Amino acid sequence: MFQRILVANRGEIALRVIRACQELGIGTVAVFSEADRGAHYLDLADEAICIGPASSSESYLKIEHIIAAAELSEAQAIHPGYGFLAENYDFAEQCRDSGIEFIGPPQEAMRKLGDKVEARKIAMEAKVPVVPGSDGLITSEEEAVRVANEIGYPVLIKATAGGGGKGIRPATDEKSLRTELKAASAEAEKAFKNAGVYIEKFVQKPRHVEVQVLADQHGNAVHLWERDCTMQRKHQKLIEESPAPKLPENVRLEMCEAATRLVRTSGYFNAGTVEFIVDQDNNFYFIEVNARIQVEHPVTEMVTGIDLIRQQILVAAGEKLSFTQDEITSTGCSIEVRINAEDPDQGFRGCPGTITDLIIPGGLGVRFDSHVYTGYRISPHYDSMIGKLIVYKPTREEAIACMLRALNEFRIDGPGIKTTIPLAKKILMHSVFRNAEGDTKFVERTW
Amino acid sequence: MFQRILVANRGEIALRVIRACQELGIGTVAVFSEADRGAHYLDLADEAICIGPASSSESYLKIEHIIAAAELSEAQAIHPGYGFLAENYDFAEQCRDSGIEFIGPPQEAMRKLGDKVEARKIAMEAKVPVVPGSDGLITSEEEAVRVANEIGYPVLIKATAGGGGKGIRPATDEKSLRTELKAASAEAEKAFKNAGVYIEKFVQKPRHVEVQVLADQHGNAVHLWERDCTMQRKHQKLIEESPAPKLPENVRLEMCEAATRLVRTSGYFNAGTVEFIVDQDNNFYFIEVNARIQVEHPVTEMVTGIDLIRQQILVAAGEKLSFTQDEITSTGCSIEVRINAEDPDQGFRGCPGTITDLIIPGGLGVRFDSHVYTGYRISPHYDSMIGKLIVYKPTREEAIACMLRALNEFRIDGPGIKTTIPLAKKILMHSVFRNAEGDTKFVERTW
Repeated sequence: MFQRILVANRGEIALRVIRACQELGIGTVAVFSEADRGAHYLDLADEAICIGPASSSESYLKIEHIIAAAELSEAQAIHPGYGFLAENYDFAEQCRDSGIEFIGPPQEAMRKLGDKVEARKIAMEAKVPVVPGSDGLITSEEEAVRVANEIGYPVLIKATAGGGGKGIRPATDEKSLRTELKAASAEAEKAFKNAGVYIEKFVQKPRHVEVQVLADQHGNAVHLWERDCTMQRKHQKLIEESPAPKLPENVRLEMCEAATRLVRTSGYFNAGTVEFIVDQDNNFYFIEVNARIQVEHPVTEMVTGIDLIRQQILVAAGEKLSFTQDEITSTGCSIEVRINAEDPDQGFRGCPGTITDLIIPGGLGVRFDSHVYTGYRISPHYDSMIGKLIVYKPTREEAIACMLRALNEFRIDGPGIKTTIPLAKKILMHSVFRNAEGDTKFVERTW
Repeated sequence: MFQRILVANRGEIALRVIRACQELGIGTVAVFSEADRGAHYLDLADEAICIGPASSSESYLKIEHIIAAAELSEAQAIHPGYGFLAENYDFAEQCRDSGIEFIGPPQEAMRKLGDKVEARKIAMEAKVPVVPGSDGLITSEEEAVRVANEIGYPVLIKATAGGGGKGIRPATDEKSLRTELKAASAEAEKAFKNAGVYIEKFVQKPRHVEVQVLADQHGNAVHLWERDCTMQRKHQKLIEESPAPKLPENVRLEMCEAATRLVRTSGYFNAGTVEFIVDQDNNFYFIEVNARIQVEHPVTEMVTGIDLIRQQILVAAGEKLSFTQDEITSTGCSIEVRINAEDPDQGFRGCPGTITDLIIPGGLGVRFDSHVYTGYRISPHYDSMIGKLIVYKPTREEAIACMLRALNEFRIDGPGIKTTIPLAKKILMHSVFRNAEGDTKFVERTW
């Protein structure tokens, strides 16, 4: 087992990884930018190393600085968290080239699954349903028109290097297809340095359901059931839950098994998420693989009782999974609300500031994953998420009631600080959410 | 179901009850003394009523004020929490006489079980093992000497009206027995207005193990497994856990079934705890019944998944238990550490003050039940417990590791404030605790 792990991230996920390491008896090295100097979670690591100025491109994204910090502190492994370098296979490769274990999937699987067209091919090979669309990249405008006519409008033009909702344009007819195709390709070239695009049928009013998978380096792969992340705003998830409400049990099983097949086919190991959309008739279609731990992993931990960060570390150290698929049961209901320091009245603009008043809810079934405290200064340099409130109860109805009482207890104040708590409460009280009748555009349409 | 419940308590247990009511959709009325005015948990109730000055005898123990507050606010039921009036059958009677449901056991069972000699008789009737001792109250010094000779020294002289470690004196020989008997009786008369005492064999190096029971008003009674509360200091529990480590499975089952028999025999309903001591040979002996919810109830909630406060409310409203004994499984391990504002270097004297710096640990498997926050003033008027840190993990080893990392994260500061956290850490790191080889005097002997 590793003696020391460097955590190449910040905020709540850095603290989450430090906690998992401490519970395993593993030493920790934190890295921080100048903007994060003095944060309490850094004190909890055995060592904390400054890797640059506030700008993430000069610190948390600076591969050489992070690898140097790992070498300096004699860390044998690096956990990348999510975001920043988590899905950067150059980083994974450089870690392993430096003799440092990258706690994540193998580079080759990261590379293949990071390319959306290639991921789609692997999914088809694994007999995982994909959204009807082009066979690979679109090579001409005429091909695009032919494919769109075949599958029917509306369609989506997607950048093969995109992800997380970025690099996607809809087209409702041939005219808009021709216009958008050029724009999409140019935009993709600019944003991802890869102009490749492909076409998919635009599935109307979908739900977003994803499957947590876990595989070791010995060929064992399991799923840890699904999460419903339909409550989004501009492709940013707001509320996640497990199990997915109103998903027929046979669909649920088929989807989870499909995710496991995809993992096996792609030679993937460590934790990952296979994302699907589910249409109004409960047909599911593969969207993409997130080759990292996800923000919303806690809801899976609550219903399965399995510590995913711990498992990531064990897998990276070469251990075999200590459970089989049959032993992974999903019990009760867990919901997570992301608490972002954003002003809903100002277009959800981040609102940094110092927290002067903080009361965190607790009690039975309540978990809070956060690095903030009274006196903490929310930095303008990074994303606006300041914590994740997670509840776990026997039933969905009880989980919603528990989340509402917890959000009502929550008090966070400071000059200029506003949060997404009021929006989360509105969603939780809305009959569409309660009846699980929402789709991924519900929040935007309604508020 | 009740529309409104008055919570006749303060601090963390008042908040715990408010939370359970809110999750059930029941309105809440908080009561408070002048010392607690302005506390945040009072804002969470639908109504908050001042019932008197800081002194608890003039507020939280003032039956008339509490019942008047319930009538004024049209509360249909009162939850007494623990301590204060929780085991006062006059209070329970006056509630019910006023047409207000007392959320607790029936008065008659409270009265009988509150008297230790009578409780002992009921236990014997229910074939629950009791510590060898006198058949009822001691009526003369000569009888005491005869009984002590029969069962062998050392013996304990116990006040029938005592409890929670109060009103107990040991005697190691006939001479000390004669001296202590008089003193014990006089002390009991003074403390409990009941001079009655009885004699029991002094079980050496016992563990304290208790069984959580729950019964409805329709004759259904179940146990929710046991808690080990061996880590005590002067009869005050410091660390509690479930399941009891190293307790043979057959002993565990026998003890739990004995507790259920006792409940049935005594006509008890609602939640209660049957306390036992366990000797070095794993023989268990009934000690007393706590006719209320206990401070340490969360560890049982974690391993069984059952919300005990919710169950108390449902039972008081006349509902039948929604589960059978077979459906109550104990999974994983839960540990609770009581965090008291006490100075271990000053004989564990309470150290009130204002909290200026507070960082509460969170994450997977961590629960914190507390009413405090940055800026909260710990009152000198009440007990020194400021919160309960509870962890839940698959194994005891993991639970200990999780509790240690959580305690290491905990930061609570303020002028003059010291806590029992350093002592808890010492206990958790000690091989005697880790190997579950302690007895109820271990902490006092060691520190």
